[in-house]
Amino acid sequence: MVRRNTALTNLKAGYLFPEIARRRRAFAASHPEAKIISLGIGNTTEPLTPHIDQGLVEGARRLGTPEGYSGYGDEQGMTVLREKIAQVFYHGTVQSDEVFISDGAKCDIGRLQLLFGPQTPVAVQDPSYPVYVDGSVLIGAAGPWTGEGYRGIQYLPCTADNGYFPDLSRIPEQSLVYFCSPNNPTGAVASRSQLESLVKAATDQGALIIFDAAYAEYIRDPSLPKSIFEIDGAKTCAVEVNSFSKPIGFTGVRLGWTVVPRDLSYAEGGSVNADWNRICTTVFNGASNVAQYGGLASLDDEGLREMRSLTDYYLENAKIIRTTLTSLGISCVGGDNAPYIWAHFPGQSSWDVFERILNTCWVVTTPGSGFGPAGESFIRFSAFGHRSDVEEACGRLHNLFK
Amino acid sequence: MVRRNTALTNLKAGYLFPEIARRRRAFAASHPEAKIISLGIGNTTEPLTPHIDQGLVEGARRLGTPEGYSGYGDEQGMTVLREKIAQVFYHGTVQSDEVFISDGAKCDIGRLQLLFGPQTPVAVQDPSYPVYVDGSVLIGAAGPWTGEGYRGIQYLPCTADNGYFPDLSRIPEQSLVYFCSPNNPTGAVASRSQLESLVKAATDQGALIIFDAAYAEYIRDPSLPKSIFEIDGAKTCAVEVNSFSKPIGFTGVRLGWTVVPRDLSYAEGGSVNADWNRICTTVFNGASNVAQYGGLASLDDEGLREMRSLTDYYLENAKIIRTTLTSLGISCVGGDNAPYIWAHFPGQSSWDVFERILNTCWVVTTPGSGFGPAGESFIRFSAFGHRSDVEEACGRLHNLFK
Repeated sequence: MVRRNTALTNLKAGYLFPEIARRRRAFAASHPEAKIISLGIGNTTEPLTPHIDQGLVEGARRLGTPEGYSGYGDEQGMTVLREKIAQVFYHGTVQSDEVFISDGAKCDIGRLQLLFGPQTPVAVQDPSYPVYVDGSVLIGAAGPWTGEGYRGIQYLPCTADNGYFPDLSRIPEQSLVYFCSPNNPTGAVASRSQLESLVKAATDQGALIIFDAAYAEYIRDPSLPKSIFEIDGAKTCAVEVNSFSKPIGFTGVRLGWTVVPRDLSYAEGGSVNADWNRICTTVFNGASNVAQYGGLASLDDEGLREMRSLTDYYLENAKIIRTTLTSLGISCVGGDNAPYIWAHFPGQSSWDVFERILNTCWVVTTPGSGFGPAGESFIRFSAFGHRSDVEEACGRLHNLFK
Repeated sequence: MVRRNTALTNLKAGYLFPEIARRRRAFAASHPEAKIISLGIGNTTEPLTPHIDQGLVEGARRLGTPEGYSGYGDEQGMTVLREKIAQVFYHGTVQSDEVFISDGAKCDIGRLQLLFGPQTPVAVQDPSYPVYVDGSVLIGAAGPWTGEGYRGIQYLPCTADNGYFPDLSRIPEQSLVYFCSPNNPTGAVASRSQLESLVKAATDQGALIIFDAAYAEYIRDPSLPKSIFEIDGAKTCAVEVNSFSKPIGFTGVRLGWTVVPRDLSYAEGGSVNADWNRICTTVFNGASNVAQYGGLASLDDEGLREMRSLTDYYLENAKIIRTTLTSLGISCVGGDNAPYIWAHFPGQSSWDVFERILNTCWVVTTPGSGFGPAGESFIRFSAFGHRSDVEEACGRLHNLFK
């Protein structure tokens, strides 16, 4: 038979979230009486809001009419949606042909490294969203697991000691730097001056930032940047990945976008934007047209009001969780401009704390060590959940840790 | 700045269909009076049928309700849809956990080579759907363009001389073999005995077949296999890629599936199915839940009736085109169990014929040479179009070639 991709051999067996789901199922099977509540995976729980849902419904309905039917669209997405995103989220600092519609940030992260291939070194915040690292291993840009991380990945620890912002002097030359703000999993948000220093460091090192802004709409502090393109110089050193999943609950509907500036070029010259266009037209075929109609509805006045009310709801959940943990003496960050709370359990292993909370509170969380070596002894609490579940989970946590 | 993936440097500048679209736009701009008709890209044109569209509409509507909302689903797709596909299309010879729901065949083809990496040689029917080759180049499994093809790709010519079925003795050891039946672009359908010989050749060579069955629902001759898994032995040497695009007009809705048998293993041992699961959970996040509800509606009795009537419609178009071309003395195949007609213009270049038909008939076709070296001097006519447009295009072709 054919041989296995050696990159797959390098990848550890389980992706984090399926492993959590497996443990949850095993617990449920042995404890059928337990009403399990998830504060684990960042999965939206509230119904789509009426106006946005109507956009989806009407998008689906028009496909059943001769005038409204559409087959393959542009792989880059509907022009009107690209224009609207450029206008609403970037206020014209980004042009519509720099916006590429996708079926979600995770999928685009998987495709982005095709631009740079296995030769380009990778740096990640540590802890970070697992797909940055796993995708790098899959493309061959990182080697086997060493016990402390993947060989060839430059981990940039984000800890309480550095205010969850990494030491930028460790960014390798001509590397890809994954940077997520508001951060998953820590909930920390980089300030304007921090992002300015990031852009400067990347420019100095000839590095390219892959900026993940999937949680930007959770920012409430007006001084905090929502996009890397609010920073001067970013258009020659950054791409930005974003998503409709968390602002409007499209986790299952699948819609996102990536901004690839026209000013971005390779060391050898040549346009990264043109190459991204080639990749999107070659191994992608566009996001669902129904999803795109829904996305469009979210960007008019009524849709934007609904987006705000939905993110407000989850932020209120975050406040409840954070207040609970803080009142119990558990040190935590995040949850004010992000839907995640990052809680520290010094001296304990993340998976041990995960198991303890699951077994005694019937609450699913996410072990911090699953996000990278520096996540050890942390737990990520997700604010995505029904209010009543969040309140009940907090009551149980109170009983455990009081 | 960062360096470009050398694989991208190897890829020729333009993906075929955007290049055709570019030429069409240029012609339209200089001939504003021309009513252009497309028999080019295989893009469905008829509205979604009522029952299937209602499945989409209801899927969208339920997301707006507390009971019906769903966020992230399983990356592999809804269990009920996987089960239904196993039952309807494979009559139980394939199990539901061997079916992975995707956002379309093209996207899965792009991901599939992550299983095997750059070291595994690739063979393709020549001519073939461009994504097989372009995806291979992107992953580094093929080298630069030599003027006659990409270095390292084994082209398997399918010509009138061999009845559009390749010489299987040329399949390399331990290679991937892309095989499409009903074929895009030739419209030829492999017989049962031909597929038996394909499975035998792959098994003997330790090769893996990536069988593209995206047009299976256009088969009307009951003796012709619709799936590679109708052939004994295929489950240890083949995966099958398929799609809802062409049978129910979901080209824009985005829904497909890939079957990866549990019996499939690597040379080193280890389950290909388990690795595919890892890849789908790592760099993919599932097809749109709205699209999946639509797909489900297409697989009940009413949906299957609609699927049949839609494919009948396009097959009637195909018959009209083929009859027209044949009556003009143009030699062609396909169009009886496939929505493509492959027409031969001996001694002429495909792009010249393409330009001639565009300039004099205002009809867009697809130049055969875009599908590979053996496609030179052929033109692919697509049967996807409104009946009145197809009839008008055929009238114009008649005037040109009479």
